Amino acid sequence: MIKVNVDEMLRKNSELITSALDALLPKGDEPHTVLYEAMRYSALSGGKRIRPTLTLEFCRLAGGDVTAAIPYAAAVECVHTYSLIHDDLPCMDNSDTRRGRKSCHIAYGEANALLAGDALLTYAFALASENPFADAERNCRAVSALAGAAGYDGMVGGQVCDLLYEKTAPDFSAFIDMECKKTVELITAACTLGLICAGADEEMHAAARKYAYGIGIAFQLIDDILDGDTAGNTVLAYMDRAEAADTAKKLTESAVESISSYEGCEALASLAEWLLSRTA
Amino acid sequence: MIKVNVDEMLRKNSELITSALDALLPKGDEPHTVLYEAMRYSALSGGKRIRPTLTLEFCRLAGGDVTAAIPYAAAVECVHTYSLIHDDLPCMDNSDTRRGRKSCHIAYGEANALLAGDALLTYAFALASENPFADAERNCRAVSALAGAAGYDGMVGGQVCDLLYEKTAPDFSAFIDMECKKTVELITAACTLGLICAGADEEMHAAARKYAYGIGIAFQLIDDILDGDTAGNTVLAYMDRAEAADTAKKLTESAVESISSYEGCEALASLAEWLLSRTA
Repeated sequence: MIKVNVDEMLRKNSELITSALDALLPKGDEPHTVLYEAMRYSALSGGKRIRPTLTLEFCRLAGGDVTAAIPYAAAVECVHTYSLIHDDLPCMDNSDTRRGRKSCHIAYGEANALLAGDALLTYAFALASENPFADAERNCRAVSALAGAAGYDGMVGGQVCDLLYEKTAPDFSAFIDMECKKTVELITAACTLGLICAGADEEMHAAARKYAYGIGIAFQLIDDILDGDTAGNTVLAYMDRAEAADTAKKLTESAVESISSYEGCEALASLAEWLLSRTA
Repeated sequence: MIKVNVDEMLRKNSELITSALDALLPKGDEPHTVLYEAMRYSALSGGKRIRPTLTLEFCRLAGGDVTAAIPYAAAVECVHTYSLIHDDLPCMDNSDTRRGRKSCHIAYGEANALLAGDALLTYAFALASENPFADAERNCRAVSALAGAAGYDGMVGGQVCDLLYEKTAPDFSAFIDMECKKTVELITAACTLGLICAGADEEMHAAARKYAYGIGIAFQLIDDILDGDTAGNTVLAYMDRAEAADTAKKLTESAVESISSYEGCEALASLAEWLLSRTA
């Protein structure tokens, strides 16, 4: 398989996404300055931009125009950023730091962080519904896919399970179901939005869902292995590190396999392997 | 003008909306039960359903099929409900009660209330984008109008101003701008979504915006008069009760005037007057 420099690919996509977000997010404009700053602080704070990269790369894989997928990619990143802001709030994980600096509510106060999260979530749907490079049919599908992935039976549902399972450890299948909702659903939506933009067929959507499942669960397993904690909602409550690493490897192989018949699949295949081998 | 029984109209529309929300909101289904219950607790807790009534009545006024507007009306009510849940949170208004019973975070805990609000906001966009009675063009416009009204330059922006102005009282025009963002924008979207559903022309959209402005600001003024407090963000910091009542009356007249040329305008005209004369 052709070697792809994943660091370079992520850097290029990240530049695209960051400059799009910088242009699309509101700025200046009293009296909302503090809201706009809080939104920008969290959305422009770095991060690897894995999810929006998936949107762009799946659009590319399906032969679509990557520029047309940028508003969708930005929408996905807004949803991801909102989820981090709300997760960090005192009533949730109560985390003072995020990506090596103050979390949003430490920097801007709790009320502004709550509202910045609300505004980013809302803006994601504005971006997707108003993508000028796609027609109403595609924009509607994008909104629907994103809302489904983020909502009560997706990311928010996963968060509720996470809170519940801190009290009572679930069985393994319920644990995996939680990880699917918390993480895999939005990763799936990220891939799906790229394909919607490119007008891909259902077979390709099915392949993307399989890919997203593989890299999404593997991502969580690697997180848990790197974290090393065996208490709480971690795969290490169900298997040892070697077994978890082996499972992540198999999931990654299955992700790579799912897209292997598509020409130009090397970038996404290499990304899956890069995610498996990460050490931080 | 034909007499319209507003209580009866609101009762009928409220029944439609409540039974739609009851059918549309998730229920049962472990392990999310607590999330679904919190969403339902707040969305099915009564309230006059003014906003979704506006959606249905503007659809009717424009000759549209009211049934087709129900998913949009439900979406508007989900956004309204989310805003109440997040407003009541300890870091915002810290309110223990809402509509005569425990606020969502008192009943379900702060984390679940935060997440129930997030889920309702997200679900609003699912409902609007997936309205089976309208085409993708209309559903996209509905999502866009709703996201604009709810977002950083709409309701969330208004909330940020409200927080700011607790510290420094603004001049009157900034105060009115805050009220527009906090309240009028979503009321405007409620009217607009009914018209989008019916395929109304731009002239009717302009009339609806004027109507929404009139009833929206009048609504806030009446709230402030009934509340009677002269401290904080209230119109009584700028004028006395009599002046405020007179302003509300003029705004209501202007709202009624804006739609008076449309056949069947009596229901919405009577609603505007009913809102002006309310005593609670």
